[in-house]
Amino acid sequence: MSSIKDVANLAGVAVGTVSRVINNTGAVKPATRDKVKAAIEALNYVPNEVARNFKMQKSNMIALLLPSIWHPFFSELAYYIEDELDREGFKLILCNSGGKPEKELYYFDMLEQNKVAGIVGITYNDIENSVKTDIPMISIDRHFNNKITCITSDNFEGGRMALRELVKAGSKKPAFLGSVPSDYSETMLRKEGFVQEAKALGVPVVVYEEPDPIKDDDQYYSNFLTQHKDIDGVFAITDMTAAKYIERAKLAGIRVPEDVKVIGYDGIQDHSFFHPLLSTIRQPVEEMARTAVRLLLKKVDGETLDGEIYRISVKYREGETT
Amino acid sequence: MSSIKDVANLAGVAVGTVSRVINNTGAVKPATRDKVKAAIEALNYVPNEVARNFKMQKSNMIALLLPSIWHPFFSELAYYIEDELDREGFKLILCNSGGKPEKELYYFDMLEQNKVAGIVGITYNDIENSVKTDIPMISIDRHFNNKITCITSDNFEGGRMALRELVKAGSKKPAFLGSVPSDYSETMLRKEGFVQEAKALGVPVVVYEEPDPIKDDDQYYSNFLTQHKDIDGVFAITDMTAAKYIERAKLAGIRVPEDVKVIGYDGIQDHSFFHPLLSTIRQPVEEMARTAVRLLLKKVDGETLDGEIYRISVKYREGETT
Repeated sequence: MSSIKDVANLAGVAVGTVSRVINNTGAVKPATRDKVKAAIEALNYVPNEVARNFKMQKSNMIALLLPSIWHPFFSELAYYIEDELDREGFKLILCNSGGKPEKELYYFDMLEQNKVAGIVGITYNDIENSVKTDIPMISIDRHFNNKITCITSDNFEGGRMALRELVKAGSKKPAFLGSVPSDYSETMLRKEGFVQEAKALGVPVVVYEEPDPIKDDDQYYSNFLTQHKDIDGVFAITDMTAAKYIERAKLAGIRVPEDVKVIGYDGIQDHSFFHPLLSTIRQPVEEMARTAVRLLLKKVDGETLDGEIYRISVKYREGETT
Repeated sequence: MSSIKDVANLAGVAVGTVSRVINNTGAVKPATRDKVKAAIEALNYVPNEVARNFKMQKSNMIALLLPSIWHPFFSELAYYIEDELDREGFKLILCNSGGKPEKELYYFDMLEQNKVAGIVGITYNDIENSVKTDIPMISIDRHFNNKITCITSDNFEGGRMALRELVKAGSKKPAFLGSVPSDYSETMLRKEGFVQEAKALGVPVVVYEEPDPIKDDDQYYSNFLTQHKDIDGVFAITDMTAAKYIERAKLAGIRVPEDVKVIGYDGIQDHSFFHPLLSTIRQPVEEMARTAVRLLLKKVDGETLDGEIYRISVKYREGETT
């Protein structure tokens, strides 16, 4: 009796493609569909009913595990991930972890039990060794290991860009304002790029960081403001950090951009109605989302990916703070 | 042979509760769980394996159908809906319709095929007659018919509140600025409340509306600005409408709040870093979300609900625009 593999070989396509044609669950080009159908007929292939039912009921679910959908960066990401999944005939299960390691592990466990086809994960905790799941996974911003491909914006290049733009805007003594996650995160490269570019250009820089998560916002910003009175530029690790800095600086009599130029990272402002419009390194959210889905579905289909980390180009968007 | 109903009757609980105990899918109080287990033992009840598998694989999925997760009101709503569902052992499937009727119908069809246990829907199109699904559903903001319970903020009271707050802030000639959906929507009551309260207080009001969706923003705001130069207060149907009005008014030399007081509706600003902070009627998002889930799960359990429309109290939040 023929197997789904025989059909795939004869049609010259991946097993996943045959499965999508049989279950009618994903986008398959008409020409490919015809080839698969011809192969099914030629081989007199009868899909295994159990496997087929299993596939139909289960394999079209992809989980998105993130800290909170109630954050503009994550909700934009989720929007495009769902859109791309829907095009491919997959459904999205949403899981808010609150950024808590125990909640992340709970969800991994739950997803394994529920046999989702794959996971897109945005996690910031050291769960690497606790995750036993063999479900195909793509990570965003966090690099685990070879098994879990990571998609991220080009944080290093973004950091370099921020330094150059601050200098271009007239800053002579720029500072990096950020926090240090307990585990390696790709976002750390924002600082690296910033500092290295400053070295290359011979610009003196200040780096101010506290361990993540920042427990006392008031203390954090007031420490920075009192310890570094002479800076005239700030590259904040996120737009929210930039916005909070600007608010506190104003209270301290510091004008942005007159006294200090500020650049954030993310691009969370979607329109121009609320001010200040931050000058920022814009994350390529749509491209990150669609790339994550495309790579994940390749993994689901059993393909091996070329890379471990995919870094997607960022752009500088000028606002009112430089 | 005993049925699940017999077990439920003996234990004095709903069938859904028995099902949750058997399938271990939801939060059940320990005392209730014990009662159910005792009843199962007493009746020597053997769950129907097929039904049980079906339940286990399917019935813990709830779909959230909304225009776009990439909108602060919807992402906040989704956050709390997922949180409440997770407490009850259910998973959330996210569906972005883009507000398009054909996409909404496509999703209803897909959800029926995928046999989700229930749907929370936020739809703004006339799909009532096209929806054939018997899946339990809760609608937010849109009232369909008896079968589909509707959860909404108390739009009428919110409109009255907005009128009173504008008058309190000194407005003598307030205006309502909105749009008219093609079908009945609970959000229309914002205007009704506003106009009725003005009548009751003897305050002259202007109502400016165009059909939804507004095709040309520039035209819409410039029409309003040129046709109603003498107004000194604006109640905008949403915060976004308020923000857009303020931006255009500024270009026309109108200062907010000095010349015109502005109140929006929604409460999309979660922090105080971007300005202007809108004075607004804040939707009780968390309570709407948790109520929607609680009522939906009652429906999933086969209970009949008392009401057709649940209207949840709103609050006025003062910002910088009144």
